[in-house]
Amino acid sequence: MTHSFAFEHWASTHQVRAEQVLARALPGEETLPERLHAAMRYAVLGGGKRVRALLCYAAAELAGTTADSADAGAAAVELIHAFSLVHDDMPCMDDDDLRRGKPSCHKQYDDATALLVGDALQSLAFTCLAETQVPQALKQVQLLAHATGSRGMCGGQSIDLQSTGKTLTRSALETMHQYKTGALIRAATLLGAYSADKTETSLVNLLDQYSRNMGLAFQVVDDILDATADTQTLGKTAGKDALQEKSTYVSLLGIEEANTLVQSLYQQSLQLLAGFGTEADALRGIARFICERQF
Amino acid sequence: MTHSFAFEHWASTHQVRAEQVLARALPGEETLPERLHAAMRYAVLGGGKRVRALLCYAAAELAGTTADSADAGAAAVELIHAFSLVHDDMPCMDDDDLRRGKPSCHKQYDDATALLVGDALQSLAFTCLAETQVPQALKQVQLLAHATGSRGMCGGQSIDLQSTGKTLTRSALETMHQYKTGALIRAATLLGAYSADKTETSLVNLLDQYSRNMGLAFQVVDDILDATADTQTLGKTAGKDALQEKSTYVSLLGIEEANTLVQSLYQQSLQLLAGFGTEADALRGIARFICERQF
Repeated sequence: MTHSFAFEHWASTHQVRAEQVLARALPGEETLPERLHAAMRYAVLGGGKRVRALLCYAAAELAGTTADSADAGAAAVELIHAFSLVHDDMPCMDDDDLRRGKPSCHKQYDDATALLVGDALQSLAFTCLAETQVPQALKQVQLLAHATGSRGMCGGQSIDLQSTGKTLTRSALETMHQYKTGALIRAATLLGAYSADKTETSLVNLLDQYSRNMGLAFQVVDDILDATADTQTLGKTAGKDALQEKSTYVSLLGIEEANTLVQSLYQQSLQLLAGFGTEADALRGIARFICERQF
Repeated sequence: MTHSFAFEHWASTHQVRAEQVLARALPGEETLPERLHAAMRYAVLGGGKRVRALLCYAAAELAGTTADSADAGAAAVELIHAFSLVHDDMPCMDDDDLRRGKPSCHKQYDDATALLVGDALQSLAFTCLAETQVPQALKQVQLLAHATGSRGMCGGQSIDLQSTGKTLTRSALETMHQYKTGALIRAATLLGAYSADKTETSLVNLLDQYSRNMGLAFQVVDDILDATADTQTLGKTAGKDALQEKSTYVSLLGIEEANTLVQSLYQQSLQLLAGFGTEADALRGIARFICERQF
């Protein structure tokens, strides 16, 4: 109980922190081009669970460095995530009108602006990383660029497009999600580790495994929620997977087995962190949050 | 005559070089996701004048470094340029079916793939820069990210969208183009300068001025060609500016004064380089090429 309360405090403190870092990183609405900057702020600020930023801060704690040094990584990965949501919602992709309980960016503005918002948010993510004094900043750029591109998140979207209406094997489904959401969750975690002046390979390997578990758990929970929660609770359109005849962990395993998988991934993550003390508490709390979230 | 021949040889050698570097940087068509990688290669390879890559190589020569060290910058800036063309051609932007004499990416593939192609090409540009051993690589990332984003190329597109159908002042038109095309031409040049182990501030300032002249000249020539050349010669749809009631240097100054402006920018560029020997020949040749091109 105490442990859960302490994590909730840590999480809300770092969510607020990420929001402030993002608000500073984004150009103001009075900066030319005003409409684009207003739309970028609309797409990024004031919503979202900031799971990726939290992973970055939590991994930085385990790596023994400060939140200050992890700010750039946390902002960068949230900017990439926000860009992907803006582009995914567009009519030529998922065509979704609702995001975080508000009209999605292209509904609030227009398609052309949404396209440019996503493009410019991606650039801004790399600006954030390149402007820090973090010694491993170039390594961070390399990691995030790879996780974002065709062998990461964008590649996963492409596989997803090719897969709609087809029944995927579990292995193909896992590959798709490793690209589509797993790569960025892994990058978020490792960005935190590389915020330190120096990072041991053994720590990178451990966080690599932790974040792969979390990436998979995150997606399975997403599939469960899409099948069981309502639109208002989610803040985005529910029940879309079944409507679009997408292969999901729920369609493949059923709700019960999907839930069992999530619990097993949670336990594995705790075991990975078993050798650490309180410096791993944030990562433990995030694992629990990802596996038990209801929205 | 000899001078022009030598430049043509240099240009074609370095165009071929850029093409080879790009072909190696782009994942193969057999790499998952195959369709996305095929579309990325379609959008980037086998066309284009590679002016931005040439600027990068030429500036590297003036900065006293090798083409090897400038390869990453040359590829990165061409990837950003290619991404912008793919997104600009999409139905929600300029809605153009033709690019470099071929169907544009969304016509050859589909809108969703074109969206992802652009996104993934941007990521790949930063992968190229981050994977080099160039000592000033982080500076290069910073420069390119800024030139690409909302205070650079993407911002220029946004200003352009807001300006269609309005009559712009010359000053507003110049601001728009500084963002839309100027920023990336400047970045191309300075990426070359930062390919060196160390770059003198005086050289950066000189190349900054040179590239601003070139950016402006490039746009004015573009406007002249759009008004005077035919679609087949351009490899893209001609006469679009007038059709879309866009403010251009031709609509604002008339053809004759626009031509005079280009000649004046050319002379200014030569003067900037007057203190250098043959190490500036490539930059002189590019200036002439940009100002005298017919397509």
